[in-house]
Amino acid sequence: MLFRSGTTALDSIKTPFGERERIVGGAGTYIGWSATRLGVGTGLVSVIGEDFPQAELDAMTSAGMGLDGVECPEGGKSFFWAGSYHEDMNGRDTLATELNVLADFKPVIPQAWRKAKWLMLGNIDPTLQASVLDQMEERPELVVLDTMNFWMDIAMEPLKAVIARVDVLTINDEEARQLSGERSLIRAAKAILAMGPRYLIIKKGEHGALLFHHRDGELVMFFCPALPLEDVVDPTGAGDTFAGGFIGHVARTGSTDFDTLKEAIVVGSALASFTCESFGTEGIRAVTEEVLDNRVDAFRNMMSLRASAAATMA
Amino acid sequence: MLFRSGTTALDSIKTPFGERERIVGGAGTYIGWSATRLGVGTGLVSVIGEDFPQAELDAMTSAGMGLDGVECPEGGKSFFWAGSYHEDMNGRDTLATELNVLADFKPVIPQAWRKAKWLMLGNIDPTLQASVLDQMEERPELVVLDTMNFWMDIAMEPLKAVIARVDVLTINDEEARQLSGERSLIRAAKAILAMGPRYLIIKKGEHGALLFHHRDGELVMFFCPALPLEDVVDPTGAGDTFAGGFIGHVARTGSTDFDTLKEAIVVGSALASFTCESFGTEGIRAVTEEVLDNRVDAFRNMMSLRASAAATMA
Repeated sequence: MLFRSGTTALDSIKTPFGERERIVGGAGTYIGWSATRLGVGTGLVSVIGEDFPQAELDAMTSAGMGLDGVECPEGGKSFFWAGSYHEDMNGRDTLATELNVLADFKPVIPQAWRKAKWLMLGNIDPTLQASVLDQMEERPELVVLDTMNFWMDIAMEPLKAVIARVDVLTINDEEARQLSGERSLIRAAKAILAMGPRYLIIKKGEHGALLFHHRDGELVMFFCPALPLEDVVDPTGAGDTFAGGFIGHVARTGSTDFDTLKEAIVVGSALASFTCESFGTEGIRAVTEEVLDNRVDAFRNMMSLRASAAATMA
Repeated sequence: MLFRSGTTALDSIKTPFGERERIVGGAGTYIGWSATRLGVGTGLVSVIGEDFPQAELDAMTSAGMGLDGVECPEGGKSFFWAGSYHEDMNGRDTLATELNVLADFKPVIPQAWRKAKWLMLGNIDPTLQASVLDQMEERPELVVLDTMNFWMDIAMEPLKAVIARVDVLTINDEEARQLSGERSLIRAAKAILAMGPRYLIIKKGEHGALLFHHRDGELVMFFCPALPLEDVVDPTGAGDTFAGGFIGHVARTGSTDFDTLKEAIVVGSALASFTCESFGTEGIRAVTEEVLDNRVDAFRNMMSLRASAAATMA
């Protein structure tokens, strides 16, 4: 049982490839769809409004997501986000953010999930992330926390307090620089690992992801590229899909060592690539085991030198 | 014998780590220093002014660079470039560009080099790159061409004509988009490989490099990350150092197959990392075999999943 908390949302998205109105999104949604692609059952703690489509909830349940932790306040409206991606897909404008039911959200963890072994804290107010941790009756074997620059701007101290309590932090390169005050990613990684987490994942979008870990007094690194795609149709949710695949792989293998986390980054990156190829959750929910295996192979081919390279390069 | 043509220059460089006045630089200089670190003798075709320091020429000769192709017109001044890097090192301003002797440069290949097996065409006017190719008496086994957006802006047709004649093109991601008119790097790579080259290298600076190749009707890719560094002191010449290490590795192995080119990208990236760590050519000229071997190992560690990953990830 993988347990995760995070937002559930309705998104309106416009990209050079088209637009979609009020489709389901949010960190928790993408994390759940991603982890269940690996055969890992999940429990979602979040809040929705009465406008959230029942068919979508049914699909999530069928896919293996437990929704006992999803509140639906009477008369409430779902968190809503609208954004438009630039022609070159290198940036986006937020057109609307309506917190709605999220404004008063206080996550309550169902009793049955309070001893979950794997915990993914999706991007949300760090005091809520801390309150989720507080409700756990046993320390999970791995706690992964995702956050963003917004919380560094307005809630740096609560954010640092919760970061100190987790095992893995996932942020992007600019956020790593902001959090640490260091321009160099090496210096930033050292400073952030000194704040508490055992592992740091720096997500660089189309440029891949870096995993940092302190081992025997030495900083060790792993780099996973992003797969170049014919078309990036809609990158919304790619980071959350990555996170869901990452912790999902850890959950299905049951290990938290460095080698497993390296594999988990490849699996998460492969899953995220499907999210980028279609609007909303369309790409990730269509993923089958065979399709995923082929894509993981594409990553491995892209990363591999031939076996004899060590000898011929030296 | 590796033969290369490219600029030789004096550079004044300012970065957040300090500044240097009129130090030696230019594509040809970095390419030569890089290739000779691999024990590969080179011949340089370029032009300098009387102000180019004799001690630098002596050092280049001692390192294994043949300078018979370097002209020094009477009373001429060296090509001069001055630039200042931004505080975050993500961009730079050009403060001065004085072509001087470069303005009337017509490369003449010494007779002894006209059957060289390996040819690196450094970034310069594409008509000059073509005239170097015209002077070769035998088609080299591998011709690598580097260029930049400047020539795409003012000389696209001559540039495309020379690109059609080479084996490997090295450009950055924005240049790949400009040259192909495609936003997606996959589409850009397909379009550029259709222009003639067998291989395309897309350099992404701190985000690594991609190698594309068409094999049996399929586009195959290799991704080499850049090594995150404690401090990037001065990235001037990193792309040329990469190119010199790339063709230098091909020359020392004598092979041009895809696996060798993958290794060559790792070796070139490792050499480029030394250039970034110091001003000008300081970093690359201090590289010894042992230091390079250790850095190549660092790249391999950063890229490697454990051997059993294939089984556990699927």
